[in-house]
Amino acid sequence: MSHNLLKGKKGIIFGALDENSIAWKTAERVHEEGGKFVLTNAPVAMRMGQINALAEKTGSKVIPADATSIEDLENLVDQAMEILGGKIDFVLHSIGMSINVRKGNHYTDQNYDWTQKGTDVSATSFHKVMQTLYKKDAMNDWGSIVALTYMAAQRVFPDYNDMADNKALLESIARSFGYFFGRDKKVRVNTISQSPTPTTAGSGVKGFDGFISYAEKMSPLGNATALDCANYTVTLFSDLTRKVTLQNLFHDGGFSNMGVSDAVMETFTK
Amino acid sequence: MSHNLLKGKKGIIFGALDENSIAWKTAERVHEEGGKFVLTNAPVAMRMGQINALAEKTGSKVIPADATSIEDLENLVDQAMEILGGKIDFVLHSIGMSINVRKGNHYTDQNYDWTQKGTDVSATSFHKVMQTLYKKDAMNDWGSIVALTYMAAQRVFPDYNDMADNKALLESIARSFGYFFGRDKKVRVNTISQSPTPTTAGSGVKGFDGFISYAEKMSPLGNATALDCANYTVTLFSDLTRKVTLQNLFHDGGFSNMGVSDAVMETFTK
Amino acid sequence: MSHNLLKGKKGIIFGALDENSIAWKTAERVHEEGGKFVLTNAPVAMRMGQINALAEKTGSKVIPADATSIEDLENLVDQAMEILGGKIDFVLHSIGMSINVRKGNHYTDQNYDWTQKGTDVSATSFHKVMQTLYKKDAMNDWGSIVALTYMAAQRVFPDYNDMADNKALLESIARSFGYFFGRDKKVRVNTISQSPTPTTAGSGVKGFDGFISYAEKMSPLGNATALDCANYTVTLFSDLTRKVTLQNLFHDGGFSNMGVSDAVMETFTK
Amino acid sequence: MSHNLLKGKKGIIFGALDENSIAWKTAERVHEEGGKFVLTNAPVAMRMGQINALAEKTGSKVIPADATSIEDLENLVDQAMEILGGKIDFVLHSIGMSINVRKGNHYTDQNYDWTQKGTDVSATSFHKVMQTLYKKDAMNDWGSIVALTYMAAQRVFPDYNDMADNKALLESIARSFGYFFGRDKKVRVNTISQSPTPTTAGSGVKGFDGFISYAEKMSPLGNATALDCANYTVTLFSDLTRKVTLQNLFHDGGFSNMGVSDAVMETFTK
Repeated sequence: MSHNLLKGKKGIIFGALDENSIAWKTAERVHEEGGKFVLTNAPVAMRMGQINALAEKTGSKVIPADATSIEDLENLVDQAMEILGGKIDFVLHSIGMSINVRKGNHYTDQNYDWTQKGTDVSATSFHKVMQTLYKKDAMNDWGSIVALTYMAAQRVFPDYNDMADNKALLESIARSFGYFFGRDKKVRVNTISQSPTPTTAGSGVKGFDGFISYAEKMSPLGNATALDCANYTVTLFSDLTRKVTLQNLFHDGGFSNMGVSDAVMETFTK
Repeated sequence: MSHNLLKGKKGIIFGALDENSIAWKTAERVHEEGGKFVLTNAPVAMRMGQINALAEKTGSKVIPADATSIEDLENLVDQAMEILGGKIDFVLHSIGMSINVRKGNHYTDQNYDWTQKGTDVSATSFHKVMQTLYKKDAMNDWGSIVALTYMAAQRVFPDYNDMADNKALLESIARSFGYFFGRDKKVRVNTISQSPTPTTAGSGVKGFDGFISYAEKMSPLGNATALDCANYTVTLFSDLTRKVTLQNLFHDGGFSNMGVSDAVMETFTK
Repeated sequence: MSHNLLKGKKGIIFGALDENSIAWKTAERVHEEGGKFVLTNAPVAMRMGQINALAEKTGSKVIPADATSIEDLENLVDQAMEILGGKIDFVLHSIGMSINVRKGNHYTDQNYDWTQKGTDVSATSFHKVMQTLYKKDAMNDWGSIVALTYMAAQRVFPDYNDMADNKALLESIARSFGYFFGRDKKVRVNTISQSPTPTTAGSGVKGFDGFISYAEKMSPLGNATALDCANYTVTLFSDLTRKVTLQNLFHDGGFSNMGVSDAVMETFTK
Repeated sequence: MSHNLLKGKKGIIFGALDENSIAWKTAERVHEEGGKFVLTNAPVAMRMGQINALAEKTGSKVIPADATSIEDLENLVDQAMEILGGKIDFVLHSIGMSINVRKGNHYTDQNYDWTQKGTDVSATSFHKVMQTLYKKDAMNDWGSIVALTYMAAQRVFPDYNDMADNKALLESIARSFGYFFGRDKKVRVNTISQSPTPTTAGSGVKGFDGFISYAEKMSPLGNATALDCANYTVTLFSDLTRKVTLQNLFHDGGFSNMGVSDAVMETFTK
């Protein structure tokens, strides 16, 4: 169902791991809508993933980059502009990782070295990406930068652990940098706060299946899928949303504004 | 710049008064994107406006309706479905009016009959529109309903008077009804919180020009225009945003998340 | 446990119906803290309630007033100042009523005359109270006005019906009028968004018991009781909170910032 | 104006530097209200400050601690309980520092080592304090933990630099840890989002004087002072606010809910 919404637009997509990834679906949809891009992921993640198949399918190049390394990011942006033949119109940041979650450390029993590493990967990396783009003046006017986040940044989901705090930091960075990117380069910066999505990354969170089902019952339109998110991201990359900036946009079938649904109360009280 | 985003979709657009209206621009853009619709406005507003020219330009019919009258709304929905040949996919509610503002009554000196009339026109009308559509089962699955609002619903703009409270009520109605419309009909309901826009209606607010300039300086991307809003509304009517519901979406060049901008501080302190 | 926090302060308390009422508990606690006040309620509510016992216990006078009647409110304010011997320091607005709820009309099947009557009683009455106080210059500097509200103003609770919208309107009125009351009279205006509370009024809402239990399990500190709310209101009437204004203050054991609790997930998934 | 609100309560106050500090004023007010506490600050800050005078005035002991060091925090908590003779009832976290601000690095030109150090001092320290208290089971039931924050966590204030992001992270940590502290220990955790305050720390921010004046004109009740904040904190430490938790409480004369004030528009347009 292509509308050529992104014809002529050039971008960078971070975080496509496998076909369950939101970034993967986004790459496919952006390609269908006529956009060109380079794919990037951490070298270690690429070894696990199937990103080359995606690159082939979408006619894209893959440039490995550790998003916490300024050197890698500078190389990525330089190469992307060379490959794509000019400045960048859109960027998707879909990166997140908590060692405390992986290792099973409870939120009240953090290993702070791990906490700091998770923050660097999940949140500060977004600042580093934008600072690199900004300093190199690598974004076209009316470009669009999107990062994926989760509502744990606003409300407590106990198993989300220190990723909740990382997402809060990420969203703040979007606002803070978004001001300067808007004022100086006419570039908009937003975050999409997505339904819990059964990606390979998400499935590491404890009790994730039960929670997916809870969110499904709470949301009047059900959970948004990875493909839904890719479609929504396409609108944010298009020229139809030029004045949307500094926003955290909930894309969740309505979950974020529910107090309780009939379906949840029914299950809860039976 | 048509993308045929709304090809095959049918809708109702409330509130096109003249070419400055957001609803007017939206009708033009929806038409360009392949959507069909009926136009409607209050009989009294139509006498002042040039809605027939818009109808001609977009190949639309005009059906007068007082949005506070259930009888008129029932007639409107029935006729719209007959003219368009089926159920409705999208609705734009762009209606607002405060007699206290028009007559110059200060917020602390309300005439409550006028307050109540303004609430009925500006907010309750949205409930009435949705209740009529809901009872008649007149919306297609994955349809989209949008109402225009303003940030005075969240924050104080002294000259906005009782329209602030009307917009808060409108946004609440969007959430409340949006739950049932989502759960039962797969229809999404959202509000767009638009920059101050120099429409014929908006220009009635005291000190509006100074305020437009203030908002322009505060917003990193400047104020969103009526055309920008029309473009954004097109994305919300399209199939790319199916899981966005119950949201109040700020479309304002970033104003809503600014504490203060450099440009405002500069003017303020010089 | 009196601290004489309100010694020398004079006020008006709306909405004490019986000993389950938050307003009742507030009156008792304000009395213990050294405050003096008049009690008021609608004539019809007084016939059902036991307000005279409260008046006797707290050494207060009762002045019947329909809070939708400007004439009644003017009489109330005049009499209150005469009885208390001067201007007013604090006001509690604890009034709410939905005929649609009482009569069992679903939110998607409103009787709009009833909707309008509910809005007048539950929300516009707060504007009328403040406008009367403001015009009569009846508030002392650094006075405090508090209205009780519920989180349905922000998020969907399906059974709360049109009271959700009324509370959204009430909160907006608090902000809008709070600006002028602050600027001109140094008076603060806030709303307390209280846990679901088993008052005589609240128990009319469908499925209320199940919901109380859900909220209890969701809130890390459990639901706030009517007495808890009375204590919190005392702090807002005291001189220790002089710069808190235009706020909607959640008083709910943490419910408002929960996404989901372990206790809810456990019940939900078992 | 003591009310003995904190009689019998024991606490720890972080961050009293000199008599302009909010923590300093809070210590004085807590002392007046009958609370006992230990004072603590970073060794380096203590060399610059006059904390011993405050200790003498309030009959308190000073225990130096680097709030980023678990070892120091464990020693602090152990000593505090020994000195005060039991578990802790209240904690004030008033710590913040940005090396990027001090060194004049723009937000778009961060030195990420400095960013990380600032995050550790300003935000992660709050997690470390709570984790130490939680693991040692050092808080009494119905204790209260408060951290000071600023609205730059929600909205853009360009000169606030990376402190904005640090405050967003701090507020998220309050919510995340607040859930577990509430559920397991009946302890509440909140942040106070205070007006810009002319403290020794705050005055390092560029253009701070102009901004103070802007905020003063924007706020219907004017800026909240350090003493106002101390008074408000006293209410949050008292037993009158037991069910308030996970909240970010704006204490700012109304600034946070203003879109624009008449006074600002007047200055802006003249």
